[in-house]
Amino acid sequence: MKDGVYYSDYLQLGKILNAQALESDKPGKVHAHDEMLFIIIHQSYELWFKQVLYEVQSAVDILSQSRIADNSPDLYTVHHRLKRVVTILHMLVDKIDILETMTPLDFLDFRDMLRPASGFQSIQFKLLEALLGLKMQDRYGKEYYISQLRPEDAETIRNAEKTKPLIALVNEWLERMPFFDIQKYWTETAGSDSHSFWENYKEIYSSSLAEGEKNNLKVFEEQLLSHDTRPEWSLSPRARRAALFIMLYRDYPLLQLPFGLLNVLLEIDEGISIWRYRHMSMVHRIIGMRTGTGGSTGKDYLSGALAKHHIFGEFAALTSFLIERNKLPELSPALREKLGYNS
Amino acid sequence: MKDGVYYSDYLQLGKILNAQALESDKPGKVHAHDEMLFIIIHQSYELWFKQVLYEVQSAVDILSQSRIADNSPDLYTVHHRLKRVVTILHMLVDKIDILETMTPLDFLDFRDMLRPASGFQSIQFKLLEALLGLKMQDRYGKEYYISQLRPEDAETIRNAEKTKPLIALVNEWLERMPFFDIQKYWTETAGSDSHSFWENYKEIYSSSLAEGEKNNLKVFEEQLLSHDTRPEWSLSPRARRAALFIMLYRDYPLLQLPFGLLNVLLEIDEGISIWRYRHMSMVHRIIGMRTGTGGSTGKDYLSGALAKHHIFGEFAALTSFLIERNKLPELSPALREKLGYNS
Amino acid sequence: MKDGVYYSDYLQLGKILNAQALESDKPGKVHAHDEMLFIIIHQSYELWFKQVLYEVQSAVDILSQSRIADNSPDLYTVHHRLKRVVTILHMLVDKIDILETMTPLDFLDFRDMLRPASGFQSIQFKLLEALLGLKMQDRYGKEYYISQLRPEDAETIRNAEKTKPLIALVNEWLERMPFFDIQKYWTETAGSDSHSFWENYKEIYSSSLAEGEKNNLKVFEEQLLSHDTRPEWSLSPRARRAALFIMLYRDYPLLQLPFGLLNVLLEIDEGISIWRYRHMSMVHRIIGMRTGTGGSTGKDYLSGALAKHHIFGEFAALTSFLIERNKLPELSPALREKLGYNS
Amino acid sequence: MKDGVYYSDYLQLGKILNAQALESDKPGKVHAHDEMLFIIIHQSYELWFKQVLYEVQSAVDILSQSRIADNSPDLYTVHHRLKRVVTILHMLVDKIDILETMTPLDFLDFRDMLRPASGFQSIQFKLLEALLGLKMQDRYGKEYYISQLRPEDAETIRNAEKTKPLIALVNEWLERMPFFDIQKYWTETAGSDSHSFWENYKEIYSSSLAEGEKNNLKVFEEQLLSHDTRPEWSLSPRARRAALFIMLYRDYPLLQLPFGLLNVLLEIDEGISIWRYRHMSMVHRIIGMRTGTGGSTGKDYLSGALAKHHIFGEFAALTSFLIERNKLPELSPALREKLGYNS
Repeated sequence: MKDGVYYSDYLQLGKILNAQALESDKPGKVHAHDEMLFIIIHQSYELWFKQVLYEVQSAVDILSQSRIADNSPDLYTVHHRLKRVVTILHMLVDKIDILETMTPLDFLDFRDMLRPASGFQSIQFKLLEALLGLKMQDRYGKEYYISQLRPEDAETIRNAEKTKPLIALVNEWLERMPFFDIQKYWTETAGSDSHSFWENYKEIYSSSLAEGEKNNLKVFEEQLLSHDTRPEWSLSPRARRAALFIMLYRDYPLLQLPFGLLNVLLEIDEGISIWRYRHMSMVHRIIGMRTGTGGSTGKDYLSGALAKHHIFGEFAALTSFLIERNKLPELSPALREKLGYNS
Repeated sequence: MKDGVYYSDYLQLGKILNAQALESDKPGKVHAHDEMLFIIIHQSYELWFKQVLYEVQSAVDILSQSRIADNSPDLYTVHHRLKRVVTILHMLVDKIDILETMTPLDFLDFRDMLRPASGFQSIQFKLLEALLGLKMQDRYGKEYYISQLRPEDAETIRNAEKTKPLIALVNEWLERMPFFDIQKYWTETAGSDSHSFWENYKEIYSSSLAEGEKNNLKVFEEQLLSHDTRPEWSLSPRARRAALFIMLYRDYPLLQLPFGLLNVLLEIDEGISIWRYRHMSMVHRIIGMRTGTGGSTGKDYLSGALAKHHIFGEFAALTSFLIERNKLPELSPALREKLGYNS
Repeated sequence: MKDGVYYSDYLQLGKILNAQALESDKPGKVHAHDEMLFIIIHQSYELWFKQVLYEVQSAVDILSQSRIADNSPDLYTVHHRLKRVVTILHMLVDKIDILETMTPLDFLDFRDMLRPASGFQSIQFKLLEALLGLKMQDRYGKEYYISQLRPEDAETIRNAEKTKPLIALVNEWLERMPFFDIQKYWTETAGSDSHSFWENYKEIYSSSLAEGEKNNLKVFEEQLLSHDTRPEWSLSPRARRAALFIMLYRDYPLLQLPFGLLNVLLEIDEGISIWRYRHMSMVHRIIGMRTGTGGSTGKDYLSGALAKHHIFGEFAALTSFLIERNKLPELSPALREKLGYNS
Repeated sequence: MKDGVYYSDYLQLGKILNAQALESDKPGKVHAHDEMLFIIIHQSYELWFKQVLYEVQSAVDILSQSRIADNSPDLYTVHHRLKRVVTILHMLVDKIDILETMTPLDFLDFRDMLRPASGFQSIQFKLLEALLGLKMQDRYGKEYYISQLRPEDAETIRNAEKTKPLIALVNEWLERMPFFDIQKYWTETAGSDSHSFWENYKEIYSSSLAEGEKNNLKVFEEQLLSHDTRPEWSLSPRARRAALFIMLYRDYPLLQLPFGLLNVLLEIDEGISIWRYRHMSMVHRIIGMRTGTGGSTGKDYLSGALAKHHIFGEFAALTSFLIERNKLPELSPALREKLGYNS
């Protein structure tokens, strides 16, 4: 055997594979076979949460720069790593199949021994929500779940919520989109500046609405054209305009990657939301209307979080404001050039 | 080439592969590339709905017999085919990934050409819901969706709802469970008859409840011990007791397959429910708050159906009434023998 | 916060989440972002290998009894736990998608730092192969891989190969199948004993063979009818006959679970084989014809193991000896009763 | 009900859902339940093959232009549609799970009725292979399979093989990569022209090779630096250099999409290869060593095709020629600017 790195040392398997202590193996208890599965699957989830946090944190670090140079690989890297997060989330969802091989009766064999521990206490998952942009005030049942945490853990989450999350950094990046304020890009077509571009767009959008959709126009004005921002909004109207512009003109080289980035945020939201839904279904199937080990009403909490904890929903909402491609205002030659490669 | 069956004839590919006529290819329209995907994926879904209906119908036919002989392969066959349905449902869910490769803007290229067609009009899906046991009166927004159908299609569904669905047949099969009324099986333990078995069980269950769960006891009495049936119930108390008994004593040979059958019903419900959830998410991502092509408020309808259209929820609810395995009343030797193989 | 079990203590997250030390973070090296993913995914695999070993070991323990009572839950438990193994294997396969988000260039950033560590050194995977039934002499390139292990690890595997693996226990269980030697079950039909049953079967099988398949008959005689066993065989002819009988008459209640058990063994083999194939493809995509970190020729080794390491192939081979259901010899009433429930 | 498009008309469900005629339902035969599944799954595969062909054909059409403008959405569209093909392939693989719910004995109920039809006769699959770039002379067992086809079908495939396939178009697109021959991009660094860039690269590559890999250098010279092309090669050395350059400098904006395109070709190959592998395993499990319905030796044919029918393997092979990112020659400022956006 050659010198150098050895597999089990490198992976610290001594720690990893000796970290399973069953409550049901403690003195006076009866060994519950399925408790091993329960521990292993949760440890596996936590390993992957660490990886997801690592990737999202690296995206946050990159986007925290005051300016993302178009010609740096920065945006490309952010996109690539968040795509990886999506791939991981898919696997986390599928993995629920494994836990579903545990029947309700098998879970009862050790369930009471775990009280009051519960998945609420997964600090990493809370940190992930915070890092993406969920705020404490938007958390479902927040007093309740804070009460389940050790003070130092509650503190950890509160601190995390004080730093700028991914969604805020994306908002800023969108607000910085440079060509909106440079008049030369807007003179030849669609009015004299980006303002008249959007006025024009509003007309086209308005005429595309079906009878039952007329109310959308008001929402469009509030969310895209106003100067207000609102405390409950994660995105400013200016950032929303930039995002909508990207969705509409994504075929131009300079906008392809930004479009990919917006998309991957929606995929993350969707991945987490599907995970929540499957998790809720699984819990319902395994504990019915019993309370969770943490004392919650189980399914109700999960159902509340499912409905409230969408983080990038404001991007998804922009979909309502698209118009047909063949009605898109043509961009000025100067802007078209700006959005392309050197030629 | 030898005589005999030829692949493309056998599969009638002449029909299958010439059934894609794009609305956007009609005179005066502009070809929308993604419309082909839209057609193919829906045709593929309908093919699989046909298969699922075929399997569920065969289960219904078998269970419609007045008696299922223990030693016939009937129950085994029913279980096997419903398991296949679960496998198909999983694939139908995953397939949504493909439709999600269509961006909102790409859909807009042909969306208006489809009005007022919509997925509401999938007769096969409605038939499946009916065959499993969803009743017209429980359908979300039923007036609305009936109004979207051709009269003959609405009639087809109404007729389907008049025949006995799977859940009713399972209820009857559970009610017939033979050993509950035969006194010799209950004399030696747990009181003098199956009635006292359940009284005894109630005591054990009651003492297992945590503080916040005390209300469960009343529900237990209503749903399992009462003599009432209620119009809104799909299962009678007698059938529920049989089902709970199966869940508790599933380790006995005679109950293994019945347990498998109850489980597969839950898996079907879960599969359909996950399908609805992912479908809803996908629609939300593609049309936002626009109305669906059928004129519905899109996501709202899907969200309503998601919440209301659980069919086997009364089985899932029984999970709440389980007790720990080590507290299970021991069965009488006569009954234990009855539940085993010849020896 | 209530007293009792706390999530992060229970799961020993202090160990689990602090076991990632990147080689590329060592002094003098340059941080390679993707090394974290590389570590986490391997740790996650090892966690699941522990779970798979735990389940297979429990099956081995149960089957090590001198007799499995029909009316005990033993076989049911074995089947349930091996089914879980199949579910886990599926997930392990899908997980490769995650590693494939690492590009070859990203791997090069830290690949040389890992030498000579390699996946060959996963003791748990070797133990799993041994526990299922792969013998040292059948291992592809065995001298080579032994040379990669610390002596104590090589010893561990050798010891594991000395205990009776799952396939040997299944062989014994099949050989014990009780009704083959009891004459009353065979008198009324199909000749006077089980011997003439198989002679009869051979005739039917023979007449079902197509021109190009005639050679199968000789194989049938060798593998099923002879009295020999051979060192390279895991199954004896007697056990094979029992297995084939189970496959043919699986509709009888007593044979349903045994059939399920044979099936799940094939699913395990298929799961491992798909895992090997996808692993090989992934390695090929990431390192091409470079040598692996362990010094192997990478893809070649994996390709060799893929071809040689099927464990339950002798069961799969029995498929070739099936005949059509409508040509099956009818069993005697006594045997039919024996294979059913008490009635 | 409103006028306009109706779901079942639009999807031509009258054709789609009435195209299942079971051989086992013909006069004199016995209905085989699982034949429906067998038909439906094959029809579903053919539907998806149509979609895959449609997407690949659109990519071929775009790449057939004499020049792909950097600032057109062409490459973006090609990439997007081939990505969709990958998503579809994943689903086609997973779908095999459904067919595996059919046991060997169930297949025997109708297998002989299908002779000599077989999956060999899927014209669409052959067309796909041809469109991607598999040549008749590289097909495994080609005389055999041609003999299984109607003359007009064999003709269809031969014709398809005469048109330029995707891989040839990609080869041409790579050969056109404009900046290799423009001297100003190469003067300041790494020698005086692109030739000396590659000589320099060869040195670095050479010094990165481990002892057992020294032979790679010769292959590198042959495949990348020579002026030869060879009839068995799909890629010219010039095209390979361009592809390797893209892999190495993919972080530059202009190369991100080309890198994505190369990657998606590998993903298509991998998807098809996994599909072949799982198909082969499934066939092996269902028919063992019996001949396929088409008279082939079943598994052997599939195994041969698996090994030989990689189409984009020459791209995968380039992985072997990568060097570490920190050893990459720096590009000249002029070239770096060329590879970026306007600024």
